[in-house]
Formats: sequence, structure tokens, C-alpha cells
Amino acid sequence: MSDGKKTKTTVNIYGQHFTIIGEESKAHMRHVAGVVDDKMREINEKNPYLDINKLAVLTAVNVVHDYMKLQEKYEILERQLKEKE
Amino acid sequence: MSDGKKTKTTVNIYGQHFTIIGEESKAHMRHVAGVVDDKMREINEKNPYLDINKLAVLTAVNVVHDYMKLQEKYEILERQLKEKE
Repeated sequence: MSDGKKTKTTVNIYGQHFTIIGEESKAHMRHVAGVVDDKMREINEKNPYLDINKLAVLTAVNVVHDYMKLQEKYEILERQLKEKE
Repeated sequence: MSDGKKTKTTVNIYGQHFTIIGEESKAHMRHVAGVVDDKMREINEKNPYLDINKLAVLTAVNVVHDYMKLQEKYEILERQLKEKE
């Protein structure tokens, strides 16, 4: 987990190099980059005509949608836990 | 929530129009688009030299990171709930 120290990780996402500075481990950042790369390729397969810019934005849309769904599930679990206390 | 019917929503994200086809409500899709737009502007403020393409990819990286953190919290709650059963 992060210990406040900044890490600098160079990753390759969909053929582009990025240097990401953050407090997470290099392994975590590479994992994140891998997930984004996979999602971009997945969306590109279904939408081969999209330029990389729109592809990246739609990837962000896709992940924000997933995040909101997970947030809903998280809030349900929180309520269930409170009921048991 | 979605009832299997496909919805077609046109949204504007960071000055670009997107038509998103999905099973979610138009309101949900506009909310998702708004979150992505906000995040892109937030990242652009800290990284004004980034081109829109890299900005979009870094936005996806940012959201995947958030998703993974939420996933970890979700799994902790799941374990706590199981212990109480």
C-alpha cells in the first residue's frame, strides 16, 4: 500500500508511453495501465472506426459506469452491515 | 434501472459529442458523461500541456485506480458481513 513516498512508473497504454507519478506501488500502476489497455482494445473491437481519442474517452465512460454500479452494490452492503449491528 | 431496452443518448464530453447506446437510462448516461468531463478538466488543470488524447487515457487510468480502491473496500465489507452471519 502507499507510504506517502512518490513513485514514478512508465507504462505503455495502447501503444503510447505514459509516466505516472503517484503514491501507489509500481506494480499497482502497471496493473491499472493493463486494465485500461485491455478495455481500450475491447471497445476498439466493437467500434473499429473510432479514433484513439474517442476510444480513450469511451473507455473512461465505461469505467465510470462500472464504478457507479460497484458504488451502488457497496452502499447496499453497508446498509446490510448496519442492520446487523 | 435497465429493463433490457436499448437507449441512445447523445452527450458532450470535453467539447466532443458522443452517442452512447446502452441499457441504462439517459439520466444515468448523462451523469456518467458529466463525471468523465469533470475528471478530464481536473486532470487538465494539473497537466495543461497534455494533448486531449493523453488526457483521456489518463482519465481512464484515474478512474480504474478509483475502481480498484473501491473494489478493495467492497471485499472488506463482504468479509465483515460473512463474519456476522
